[in-house]
Amino acid sequence: MAMIDLNCDLGESYGSWKLGDDAAMLTVVTSANVACGFHAGDPRTLLATCESAAARDVRIGAQVSYPDLAGFGRRFMDIAPEDLEADVLYQISALDGLARVSGSSVRYVKPHGALYNTVVHHEEQAAAVVRAIARYNPDLPLLGLPGSALFDHAARAGIRAVPEAFADRAYNADGTLVSRREPNAVIHDKTAIAERALALITSGTITSISGTPVPISAESICVHGDTPDSVGIAHQLRATFTDNGVTIRPFC
Amino acid sequence: MAMIDLNCDLGESYGSWKLGDDAAMLTVVTSANVACGFHAGDPRTLLATCESAAARDVRIGAQVSYPDLAGFGRRFMDIAPEDLEADVLYQISALDGLARVSGSSVRYVKPHGALYNTVVHHEEQAAAVVRAIARYNPDLPLLGLPGSALFDHAARAGIRAVPEAFADRAYNADGTLVSRREPNAVIHDKTAIAERALALITSGTITSISGTPVPISAESICVHGDTPDSVGIAHQLRATFTDNGVTIRPFC
Amino acid sequence: MAMIDLNCDLGESYGSWKLGDDAAMLTVVTSANVACGFHAGDPRTLLATCESAAARDVRIGAQVSYPDLAGFGRRFMDIAPEDLEADVLYQISALDGLARVSGSSVRYVKPHGALYNTVVHHEEQAAAVVRAIARYNPDLPLLGLPGSALFDHAARAGIRAVPEAFADRAYNADGTLVSRREPNAVIHDKTAIAERALALITSGTITSISGTPVPISAESICVHGDTPDSVGIAHQLRATFTDNGVTIRPFC
Amino acid sequence: MAMIDLNCDLGESYGSWKLGDDAAMLTVVTSANVACGFHAGDPRTLLATCESAAARDVRIGAQVSYPDLAGFGRRFMDIAPEDLEADVLYQISALDGLARVSGSSVRYVKPHGALYNTVVHHEEQAAAVVRAIARYNPDLPLLGLPGSALFDHAARAGIRAVPEAFADRAYNADGTLVSRREPNAVIHDKTAIAERALALITSGTITSISGTPVPISAESICVHGDTPDSVGIAHQLRATFTDNGVTIRPFC
Repeated sequence: MAMIDLNCDLGESYGSWKLGDDAAMLTVVTSANVACGFHAGDPRTLLATCESAAARDVRIGAQVSYPDLAGFGRRFMDIAPEDLEADVLYQISALDGLARVSGSSVRYVKPHGALYNTVVHHEEQAAAVVRAIARYNPDLPLLGLPGSALFDHAARAGIRAVPEAFADRAYNADGTLVSRREPNAVIHDKTAIAERALALITSGTITSISGTPVPISAESICVHGDTPDSVGIAHQLRATFTDNGVTIRPFC
Repeated sequence: MAMIDLNCDLGESYGSWKLGDDAAMLTVVTSANVACGFHAGDPRTLLATCESAAARDVRIGAQVSYPDLAGFGRRFMDIAPEDLEADVLYQISALDGLARVSGSSVRYVKPHGALYNTVVHHEEQAAAVVRAIARYNPDLPLLGLPGSALFDHAARAGIRAVPEAFADRAYNADGTLVSRREPNAVIHDKTAIAERALALITSGTITSISGTPVPISAESICVHGDTPDSVGIAHQLRATFTDNGVTIRPFC
Repeated sequence: MAMIDLNCDLGESYGSWKLGDDAAMLTVVTSANVACGFHAGDPRTLLATCESAAARDVRIGAQVSYPDLAGFGRRFMDIAPEDLEADVLYQISALDGLARVSGSSVRYVKPHGALYNTVVHHEEQAAAVVRAIARYNPDLPLLGLPGSALFDHAARAGIRAVPEAFADRAYNADGTLVSRREPNAVIHDKTAIAERALALITSGTITSISGTPVPISAESICVHGDTPDSVGIAHQLRATFTDNGVTIRPFC
Repeated sequence: MAMIDLNCDLGESYGSWKLGDDAAMLTVVTSANVACGFHAGDPRTLLATCESAAARDVRIGAQVSYPDLAGFGRRFMDIAPEDLEADVLYQISALDGLARVSGSSVRYVKPHGALYNTVVHHEEQAAAVVRAIARYNPDLPLLGLPGSALFDHAARAGIRAVPEAFADRAYNADGTLVSRREPNAVIHDKTAIAERALALITSGTITSISGTPVPISAESICVHGDTPDSVGIAHQLRATFTDNGVTIRPFC
């Protein structure tokens, strides 16, 4: 029986600034990548997000980031590995405490934004993220991109690395994502997105932008919260999965 | 047999900016009020401070603050109780995680700077700090000023409130501190400071600025890390206590 | 011939977080209170806002604030007058430079949020704001609440103080605003708002919450950008003024 | 007659954290690279620094940086050129206002830390910095490293680029600086530093780490304020220059 997790970024408001429809998303996804205050998320927002996620039995992940509110964590920072390790530890710790007082706990870690992209290839930063998790709790899985430096370092450290896929993104024939700067990199039609996700889950392959099938292994599908109609896409995914006998459940 | 704890603020550097002689202080004090990143303390500094404190078996306390790096947490902020509660929870959580990976844990909470002074009389903010501790871990004691709103709320919530005294500060006849704006509010002579502390511990009273004895109950003496020769004062306190049979040990 | 200015807060987005419909508001108002980065407004947002305001010949005012992004400048801070003076100078300077490269310049100063409310009664902070303006450019007018400490200090310093009124807020019989905590403090019907504004301009009085007329002098009407349908309210004000022969033009 | 400017980073304290001996340095240097609040420098510190510099007729330069207090601007950030341009404009503007109320004005711009190193080779960021200056005031010179992308873009934009040299740093035979990671990259002996600076000014060459003479053109010598005995080095430079008939005066 096929199973899949649905994950989404949440808790990304900051003070008076609101972002995303967290309440709606929490009715659809099984894993919540909750911000930790470095790219978004003031403590009150984070606490409320943890409480809502816990109430719905949605798993809470620490969405760790570079310290960059103005850039929303989307700008690469050439941060020293020792600083990054401490920054990641601080963020996991802070969110775990908020999750615990909400009756849950941090169940996994997912790098955010520019850090997510950087640890695909940056050995020192990937190693620093893995060291932080190993020190905090080596039983915490990492959620990220398979074939990355992050996954290599996780494997060496004995940390479970959970691969995710992007149903709304085009893939190259080699399994990498088509750059957002190229045409047709992002798929907007929600039926197409859901069908791609279903194919991926049931066949283990996705059709690349050049038309060839690419093997993609994924235990979770990432739903972008900042896409127009992201809630609609999430509902479509859920409906398609349910209709086709795919069980939606957390990967941890 | 008389016993006393010595506490000091630590971990208050920030990035390239260094403050205090933490290494020296950790050889003298028994309790370290470690910053949590809101008024001072970048994650790498905080992690290193926790590691050093743990290595010396110095107790780690979360020195929680208003979010104000530019003001070093020394400016009152009229922050909503719900925000303050979440801010305090976030700070305790972050530091506790860093303390745990260092082989220790947060053992108490002490408000910092303007928050320390505010919760002496501000009911809503005092209650918010106590709620945060009660939610995080009701077994964590609070360190602060006896006779305060903070202590009242702690008592009602069943949280242990540990009174501290300031051996380098003059007291009024009613047991309150002489304002720093008045003459002779701060005592600089380290022998005098140590003798006052000793008298306080052995007799339970301190001589007020008007010459009368004032009953002061204290389980800890606060050593200001930012006073000139603060390390010298701390050593003098320790020597005087040891010479007079006062055991120096953590209050928790 | 009656004349009035319409002012509104603008430039209050921050990085990925968007706030308000600045493009629409700039087609309606004559004075833009542009954030300066302390409560909102990253530099790129501020520059774009200045460019848009300049292109429409909308006057640019520096909306100066406490340094508090997380609290959006809405929390009182007991900041030292010397710090506040420098903070205000820094903010006016930064925005003036952005306004100048956009072909305009800062034409007035308006305190924001908690600072706005504080300088109504706080002598030291009011004096600090006025000193900053006097040092930067004593020809810059202040926009604020008449009868305030701010206006007193401005008068003594020879700074023009421009009174504004709130057409969507109820007034007490003594001319002060009804607290937002009380019922009916905020008026939501846009026709009612526009009629109140018109009465105020043409008669110099507004009907208080107890039904009595209150004399209110105002050279500008503040349109709240964060009210639902704020753009609609602004259009209604403009239409009503135009229909009744009130000229809408900047106060400076 | 030989002439040279001495420049140093100043105004890099932040709130309670103090850095450098600005008062002493201002008696020695002719150009002050004053922080602008993005890597260091709260407004009150910046205002006081501008006042002191103006009182001593030391030229004020805007030391612009990435927005990174925790990293002191020493970490590369992959910031969008449009963001960087606005960030630089904001910083120059803020400091210029503070300098003007101090009786001076911003007379030049010098990138700080990681931005300094990045604009040596990063075309987009170099161009963004130059655009900001061109928009603010094309008569403002840039201070930096000759042979850099920054200098190329400045030349094309008609902005004066003033080359500086580092008397306390070893140079490679090709005129680039020896990396700090290599041995003997930094020279600590103040007599040696002063002699190297003198040779550079009088002969236009410096002896490279491999012993060959390298032609280096410099209108200013950078004195590092964070080196041990930096004030002593600055005095030694001044004495050596004066003794050898080199006039010390601002480059602008």
